Amino acid sequence: MVFNIKILGCGSATPTVRRNPTAQIVNAHERHILIDCGEGTQLQMRKFGVKFQKINHVLISHLHGDHYLGLVGLISTFALLGRKKDLHIYGPEALGEIIFMQLRASKSYLTYHIEFHSLSSDKSELIFEDDYIKIKTIPLKHRVYCNGFLIEEKPLPLRLNIHEVEKNNIPIAWYHRLKRGEDYIKENGELIPNNQLTLPPYKVRKYAFCSDTSYLESIIPIIKGVDLLYHEATFLSAEQERARQTFHSTIIDACTIAKKAEVNQLLVGHYSARYKTTDDYIKQAQPIFKNTTPVEDGDEFSIDLR
Amino acid sequence: MVFNIKILGCGSATPTVRRNPTAQIVNAHERHILIDCGEGTQLQMRKFGVKFQKINHVLISHLHGDHYLGLVGLISTFALLGRKKDLHIYGPEALGEIIFMQLRASKSYLTYHIEFHSLSSDKSELIFEDDYIKIKTIPLKHRVYCNGFLIEEKPLPLRLNIHEVEKNNIPIAWYHRLKRGEDYIKENGELIPNNQLTLPPYKVRKYAFCSDTSYLESIIPIIKGVDLLYHEATFLSAEQERARQTFHSTIIDACTIAKKAEVNQLLVGHYSARYKTTDDYIKQAQPIFKNTTPVEDGDEFSIDLR
Repeated sequence: MVFNIKILGCGSATPTVRRNPTAQIVNAHERHILIDCGEGTQLQMRKFGVKFQKINHVLISHLHGDHYLGLVGLISTFALLGRKKDLHIYGPEALGEIIFMQLRASKSYLTYHIEFHSLSSDKSELIFEDDYIKIKTIPLKHRVYCNGFLIEEKPLPLRLNIHEVEKNNIPIAWYHRLKRGEDYIKENGELIPNNQLTLPPYKVRKYAFCSDTSYLESIIPIIKGVDLLYHEATFLSAEQERARQTFHSTIIDACTIAKKAEVNQLLVGHYSARYKTTDDYIKQAQPIFKNTTPVEDGDEFSIDLR
Repeated sequence: MVFNIKILGCGSATPTVRRNPTAQIVNAHERHILIDCGEGTQLQMRKFGVKFQKINHVLISHLHGDHYLGLVGLISTFALLGRKKDLHIYGPEALGEIIFMQLRASKSYLTYHIEFHSLSSDKSELIFEDDYIKIKTIPLKHRVYCNGFLIEEKPLPLRLNIHEVEKNNIPIAWYHRLKRGEDYIKENGELIPNNQLTLPPYKVRKYAFCSDTSYLESIIPIIKGVDLLYHEATFLSAEQERARQTFHSTIIDACTIAKKAEVNQLLVGHYSARYKTTDDYIKQAQPIFKNTTPVEDGDEFSIDLR
């Protein structure tokens, strides 16, 4: 029941040799989801050992180059690797035409089908759901239409109280029924109530990705209490005016949102190329939201069961 | 009077951590020309110290991703760096729409003007000319419309025969007239013929870039006798059938063209990702065309005056 996030790029508009533009891989219950795909993402995937063929879903936040210019190359590489499975891509409407016109120009015949899901709502919507996870959009406020994404588990089953289960000699074949909430009935007809044999389920885990955006309180109800929030922090506090003009956030903005949304941990990135280190990010974050981590390319974060 | 070529990427369709897709910078008489611009080219430019703002011309051979997917990101970076000068881009017709539709989608307001020159002819044509250089297309044969490019100097002036010039006390103000071919007339009316004071000009230097293409003898008259030929050699000889099917060349094809065109030196690249080293390239090239160099990213080649 893995739930982890790998940072493939945490730079902003101008790529540098130190930081690639935005891309992340989320693995939630073996659903491998690529969020954003800046130029060079496929090389980062190779560098950090990402399995190309496990990715079935790509979520694109918005159509600024540092968030999607690596996508057409990746689509082509998937074909060169002989991919057969459908690839689901979610992003702003124009992304479909950007992809398909380039495939036409290159006379590329893909070995697989692309299902493009056009996003255009300004309200949070459920865009994917299966037996284990759900994905919702988080409408953001940027210079162009932009969404963050909330990836959350479906409610988990009850946990076995192994001590009680063994004490009562309950056969293994019954375990999945106990996890579903059934009472156990012995051969002699005696009933052991479920709550004596099980523990409450683990808390549902949630990850929210929010890049790029101005300071925006309307996202708070959507990301309330998530385990892990990635929020862009393009600028330090001294550049607040520049942040406002460019529809970006400062580290202060990101921490304030994290605090108000009562998240467990805050990751920040999408640093302006002017910042070589993240020392000042840590300094400015501490007084507002202590559990803040500035990320670097290659970092991995795991959300543990609680 | 510099004339050199820097390899920014010499891999083929699948980018690897070892080799980037195709891109080269040619500096001919301080005209800095970018040929092809695969994904990640702007990072290679940073890595290898290329001055972004010196580039005024971009030549795109064809619309396969490994030859152009880095272009929109580079265009955007030029703007972030505050570029003011026009940028001239030459490439297949659809490239214009690919660029401009993405700029529209990102609501990018460039700080400079892009002049797009659409290429569609199947005959070699002169596409650029100034006081020092000329650029011509080299129609190639690939799965999609594709051109190589010939970059050549304009004829150079006569060289001063310094020994004779000094012996005759010729004033410096006369040097440029001698270089243009004028005879010198002394104050006493005596004439010294030009050929006594000058040496023949240096040979005009030429660089030809040919990627991607099947073996194609029709390019021989266009590239005849060039100082330096870059010719793709995606495959070693064992993969000749695959080369034919994919409209690519083997090292044997490249060397045969170099030999028949009587070029001075052959550079090969655009290696299939299956080849980790170029040892076998050198082995297979030697019997056919000795002066063959397999390139790697970061290599530089200078064409000296002769």
